[in-house]
Amino acid sequence: MDYPEPIAKLIDSYTKLPGIGSKTATRLAFYTLGMDEKDVLDFSKSLVSAKKDLTFCSVCGNITENSINPCVICRDVTRDQDTVFVVENSRDVMAMENTRDYHGLYHVLNGVISPSAGTGPEDINLPSLIRRLSEHQEIDEVIVGTNVTAEGEATAMYLARLLKPAGIKVTRLAHGLAVGSDIDYADQLTLIKAVQGRTEL
Amino acid sequence: MDYPEPIAKLIDSYTKLPGIGSKTATRLAFYTLGMDEKDVLDFSKSLVSAKKDLTFCSVCGNITENSINPCVICRDVTRDQDTVFVVENSRDVMAMENTRDYHGLYHVLNGVISPSAGTGPEDINLPSLIRRLSEHQEIDEVIVGTNVTAEGEATAMYLARLLKPAGIKVTRLAHGLAVGSDIDYADQLTLIKAVQGRTEL
Repeated sequence: MDYPEPIAKLIDSYTKLPGIGSKTATRLAFYTLGMDEKDVLDFSKSLVSAKKDLTFCSVCGNITENSINPCVICRDVTRDQDTVFVVENSRDVMAMENTRDYHGLYHVLNGVISPSAGTGPEDINLPSLIRRLSEHQEIDEVIVGTNVTAEGEATAMYLARLLKPAGIKVTRLAHGLAVGSDIDYADQLTLIKAVQGRTEL
Repeated sequence: MDYPEPIAKLIDSYTKLPGIGSKTATRLAFYTLGMDEKDVLDFSKSLVSAKKDLTFCSVCGNITENSINPCVICRDVTRDQDTVFVVENSRDVMAMENTRDYHGLYHVLNGVISPSAGTGPEDINLPSLIRRLSEHQEIDEVIVGTNVTAEGEATAMYLARLLKPAGIKVTRLAHGLAVGSDIDYADQLTLIKAVQGRTEL
């Protein structure tokens, strides 16, 4: 026996989301039936709107509304125009912006170089970074803020080798212990990096 | 800084689902942006359709399409009309139907009696069960298939006390070890129930 078609289709849609199997999808679908009609309609509309009204900034690759391109950060002339912070995705931009500590520009790769997944430099938003750097000679530092994973490190290395000969300072975010963390809970690689990057008091 | 409005709204909608916090909602929202447009439109439509095209069966309370009421099971005259299987929700009906071992009718409570949550017998689909039993004298057994939780057991007890005096046989699903399970992994209450309900070989 199958569920009535409307709910079977909804279960099917939920299953397409990452990390959601058929059991969870069924639970979510039945939960949806019990939600306020307004919330369900809002959900339905926001799905279409997010897909149709958003695009990637033509300058930095960050997510932005179709009507605001280049994005608000690229348009903001009060920001430091000489530093570009390279990140993997728009969520990283948000995390950094929420610290209110960085006032330069961004470049969102929307991916990382990953030979195992067949993703090369041309497959991510990297050629546009090279173009941007050659068109804007005022940019003198590129901060590489890719994740501390094999792919993130490989991408950082690639950028350093590519940009250093052009006289651009390429820096990498510091590796070490998280603030508030216990040394005995830190993993070995983080500890090793923390020792290597120790600073004088 | 906030995300562009279309994605902020979508994150907000995902957050309204059970078990999904803001981090997961953000991940799902960004995943949605990368999905096929067709899949997103299907998802959007299925949300509205599940909410608008489904209702509860006027006889048993199971979920059914607006155009098929009473539901397919209640309409099926080849099913045993003398047994009613009482369950908490439509997912339980599906689980039982998939065994292809039960051929009677169902009654879906869409809830359980829970004094701690303030849910009494009148707040779930129970009055309609009483009405159904009085109108259909051919029903001579009620199988109580509520979950093996405090609320499920309380609901089973309530039904037994209410229906037995009316001469209706009230049975409860057997408690015991799951097929294929290890005794040493079973919890104590299950083991105790398995001993109490032991059968002669």
